Amino acid sequence: MSQSASKSTPLKRLLAANHQAWSAFQARGQAEALKTLTGLYEHSDWIVEQAFQAVPLSQLASPAALKHQLVLVVASASQEVQLALIRAHPPLSAKAKIDDAIAKDSQSEQSLVGLDRCSPQEFAALTELNAQYLKKFGWPFILAVRGPRGSGLSRATIIQTLARRINMPAEEELQECLRQIHRIAEIRLDERLGLSQSLGHAVWDACEDLAKITETPGELTVTYMTPAHRQAAQWIADQMRSAGFDEVFEDAVGNVVGRYKADAQASESGSKALMTGSHYDTVRNGGKYDGRIGILIPIEVVRSMSSVGQRLPFDLEVIGFSEEEGVRFKCTFLGSGAVAGRFDQATLEATDSSGLRLADVLKEQCRALDPAALQAMARNPENYLGFVEVHIEQGPVLTRTGVPLGLVTSINGSARYMVQITGLASHAGTTPMGTRRDAAAAAAEFMVALEETAGSLADCVATVGQLEVVNGSTNVVPGHVRLSLDLRAPTNEQRDQLVKSTMSLLESICGKRGLGYSVEQTLLASAAPSDVGLAGAWQRAIESTGLPAHPLPSGAGHDAMKLHEVMPQAMLFVRGENLGISHNPLESSTSHDLQLGCEAFIHLLDQLAASQTSKA
Amino acid sequence: MSQSASKSTPLKRLLAANHQAWSAFQARGQAEALKTLTGLYEHSDWIVEQAFQAVPLSQLASPAALKHQLVLVVASASQEVQLALIRAHPPLSAKAKIDDAIAKDSQSEQSLVGLDRCSPQEFAALTELNAQYLKKFGWPFILAVRGPRGSGLSRATIIQTLARRINMPAEEELQECLRQIHRIAEIRLDERLGLSQSLGHAVWDACEDLAKITETPGELTVTYMTPAHRQAAQWIADQMRSAGFDEVFEDAVGNVVGRYKADAQASESGSKALMTGSHYDTVRNGGKYDGRIGILIPIEVVRSMSSVGQRLPFDLEVIGFSEEEGVRFKCTFLGSGAVAGRFDQATLEATDSSGLRLADVLKEQCRALDPAALQAMARNPENYLGFVEVHIEQGPVLTRTGVPLGLVTSINGSARYMVQITGLASHAGTTPMGTRRDAAAAAAEFMVALEETAGSLADCVATVGQLEVVNGSTNVVPGHVRLSLDLRAPTNEQRDQLVKSTMSLLESICGKRGLGYSVEQTLLASAAPSDVGLAGAWQRAIESTGLPAHPLPSGAGHDAMKLHEVMPQAMLFVRGENLGISHNPLESSTSHDLQLGCEAFIHLLDQLAASQTSKA
Repeated sequence: MSQSASKSTPLKRLLAANHQAWSAFQARGQAEALKTLTGLYEHSDWIVEQAFQAVPLSQLASPAALKHQLVLVVASASQEVQLALIRAHPPLSAKAKIDDAIAKDSQSEQSLVGLDRCSPQEFAALTELNAQYLKKFGWPFILAVRGPRGSGLSRATIIQTLARRINMPAEEELQECLRQIHRIAEIRLDERLGLSQSLGHAVWDACEDLAKITETPGELTVTYMTPAHRQAAQWIADQMRSAGFDEVFEDAVGNVVGRYKADAQASESGSKALMTGSHYDTVRNGGKYDGRIGILIPIEVVRSMSSVGQRLPFDLEVIGFSEEEGVRFKCTFLGSGAVAGRFDQATLEATDSSGLRLADVLKEQCRALDPAALQAMARNPENYLGFVEVHIEQGPVLTRTGVPLGLVTSINGSARYMVQITGLASHAGTTPMGTRRDAAAAAAEFMVALEETAGSLADCVATVGQLEVVNGSTNVVPGHVRLSLDLRAPTNEQRDQLVKSTMSLLESICGKRGLGYSVEQTLLASAAPSDVGLAGAWQRAIESTGLPAHPLPSGAGHDAMKLHEVMPQAMLFVRGENLGISHNPLESSTSHDLQLGCEAFIHLLDQLAASQTSKA
Repeated sequence: MSQSASKSTPLKRLLAANHQAWSAFQARGQAEALKTLTGLYEHSDWIVEQAFQAVPLSQLASPAALKHQLVLVVASASQEVQLALIRAHPPLSAKAKIDDAIAKDSQSEQSLVGLDRCSPQEFAALTELNAQYLKKFGWPFILAVRGPRGSGLSRATIIQTLARRINMPAEEELQECLRQIHRIAEIRLDERLGLSQSLGHAVWDACEDLAKITETPGELTVTYMTPAHRQAAQWIADQMRSAGFDEVFEDAVGNVVGRYKADAQASESGSKALMTGSHYDTVRNGGKYDGRIGILIPIEVVRSMSSVGQRLPFDLEVIGFSEEEGVRFKCTFLGSGAVAGRFDQATLEATDSSGLRLADVLKEQCRALDPAALQAMARNPENYLGFVEVHIEQGPVLTRTGVPLGLVTSINGSARYMVQITGLASHAGTTPMGTRRDAAAAAAEFMVALEETAGSLADCVATVGQLEVVNGSTNVVPGHVRLSLDLRAPTNEQRDQLVKSTMSLLESICGKRGLGYSVEQTLLASAAPSDVGLAGAWQRAIESTGLPAHPLPSGAGHDAMKLHEVMPQAMLFVRGENLGISHNPLESSTSHDLQLGCEAFIHLLDQLAASQTSKA
């Protein structure tokens, strides 16, 4: 018996269509199911067969549970078998001939995106790249040409993707091909079973629409209080209104706040509210999903609740935070900081690169800037159940593991430093190796040791992101190196231990080499471990989708860090494509994963509704 | 019997005064000599005693030979004994009290430089630095306050030196204190024995005078064809004329050429000439000795020959090369290249940072620029015995070894590259250590391995002088690193082997980490091994001063490399103070070492004269 079917509730009924399709599929029995799924994987029906051997169809809770099982089957196959699976696919070719050896599905998918209508230039590029790719890796290029929305990639995108992936290391690219094969199967599965990703499509389309608003044509850049930023706020407010939020307003720091009221009974008894949201500003040339899905998933969930008149036993407050990235004024978390009552009046004096003061910019853009209002927007934590945030992972863990959703255990604490190492600049030709006081050689030895140290500590990371020989010349032994250090760990204790080990490496290496060094701390941020209650609710919500709840720390900072200072918080991660790349136009999420994010959010509300109702 | 006394010649008679003083000292016998040298080392007469035990006074060829022996005695003492020697010195104190415990000589030396007349600010700085120094190292700061010319350092220089050396590693600073103690003894030895450093002083003073001509006040900068450069050429030509050269002219590329004619008999028989010289241009904010002593030592030697009417059996052609450093037009060896017949007409199109063409600059500065003249100045190698060059070492080998002169075995061949390593930029917080494709981590691993590889090969050096994470951010795993590679070795075979090992490291490290890389060669210069005949003459010349001929390769390029392409060449190195630092205002040489350079040059001429005469 499937888990999601175990107990129906009003909220679960929002997901009834797919649940019914799945139940009908299960009801036909395993033998029939195998027939239905023939060709889901190109010439490789053994994958579905083995999945059913591991877990019988009747015990698979959902399509997501089946797909997870399929991933496990392929992952545990030998590399030889994996390569055979890849080679079973027809080449991604322009002017693909109709050929018995070419699967019908692949044929129609390639035709859908117009690969049979290439220009001569496109045909030449594709032919040349395909040949190079085959020569380098020894297998054909695999790409789910239907893309992240299922509606098809452009020929230009397909060629760019091929050109990019040809530079991947072979082992990495092999895994990417397997991921693409699962993606192809995922889309085919929808067609075979009549599944709908309507919530996921809605969020995906909303991300796309919102990304059209930018201050720099040709890329996505929305920094604080620019005209594009104001337009984005307006767009979000409009979405909230059309979705059926009861109150929608913009506050003094530019946050867009929507409130979906509790049912009448709860409203009368003065129940607490649940806060959720994320930021809508971006880095320069950023991704479309970073921050924004944490606003748009709740909006779409509210839209589907309000369309059937469904209310919760608590108010749901969805906030599009105006500023998190710190791009324009070098001050981060302006939006969530203000809501948490942590707005620092001193930041009003911060200036952007053109010298404009934040205070003046705010006065102009938010007509009635009133410093008192900035303080007044601080929420009273007693009125809240807590804060939850959905965010794209921005890392490779989920995509490598092959699971779409992640349970955030903690937002890592971090410490940042600027390190200067000083040796003695000397002539590169005349200073024998053993007698040098080479600042760059010391930096190199330090970096190698640091990489090893951080690698040996669970969930810790250490990064030298900036590194420079100051005034370096080809023929001068470096006398001065400047480097940045970024250290992160899931708890403050682990962070402090990592800092201690790092400083001790620096001291011993510089000491041994007779070099001086100085260290300046530029950031010290506390870890924000997830609230046990809210994280437990997320865990059960993820499991209700039929997926395992993969626990992982958040290496990046998030608005939840600020709310953590005043109320319980827990986050959900949605897998990103392209190895989780973020702060980059290649950031990508599929509508299937966004659909699962919506489903998990609905299950979370269901969890919290049940616990509120039982308390009441 | 001392070596230098073995056979007197007209040239050796130029050095008669010191020779006679030394012979007189030897004649008084060892017991008397010990008395004379009491207090040469502060409270440490054991040093002279042990030196005489190792080599009896009668067998020490010269003051230089004695001083070398003294260095060996201290170097072979235990560190405990060395520390006792250092601690036997009174502190370098302002307002030094007259005190039995303070040696008379130290007292008068400190008084000479006015340490007893400090301003309150100087006194405070000195007291504070002395205390810090003593606290860090546990011994008093030792400085030969009489300085490189013996005439005394300024109080400002003394305080700067103390402030600089306080940052040295302890082991290095211990050795520097011992070197300063030997320097104190060296100056005291002159007074006890009545030795003169007149040639050395003349060269030292000439370097000082020439360094007053600069294009940038407050530092020494003389780049090609600037007004300062023209003035320096004029100054050198004037020196040559006053020294008694028979012909002095400036050629089309700005070289200052002086010719001291052979004796009548040799002139009639059409003997070959010996060419010597070095460059008079400088890097920006360079040193006073780099290049210039290779012009000024021969000039002073000619001055002393001409003052007594002494001629050689061959013409001596001394050239002040106009350009070697390549600062202004990024073209090196313009002066020596033209003399070697290697002037490339294409370089006339080179431009400086303000866009001026070399051809136009030459036309304006050398009134009658004639490209034909640039070619015509190529010497016919058949008319030359070869080329010899005296140069400051620009490295730490001689000063660490404690010998003032070095015999250059080869000018190292070199290869330079720009390397780019490309990984995948990703989020520093969210990308686990094991899954990164970090270009900077790969660069670090490469640099550590390269340092080890080069260190294991005799006389080879490898330097990463430029290193940069391109567009690096604190919170981004580096995706792109750029670094420079400078590889040098005494022979082309060793250089090629080093290049091969280096490239193989790069390939294996980048391959293992799944990173791409590219390598662009920017220089490939052949090694220039010294001519056996001329190097042998230098060796005997050095030994004639009473010193061992310490062999070492030249890691830096020199004008001799260009002449190497057309005639035999060999170089002599003179030790630099301050660990041999060069291309820096701290570059320094003592008048004692310059005196030894002059003496070796005279002995070289003596060697070549004897061999020419025996051939004739």
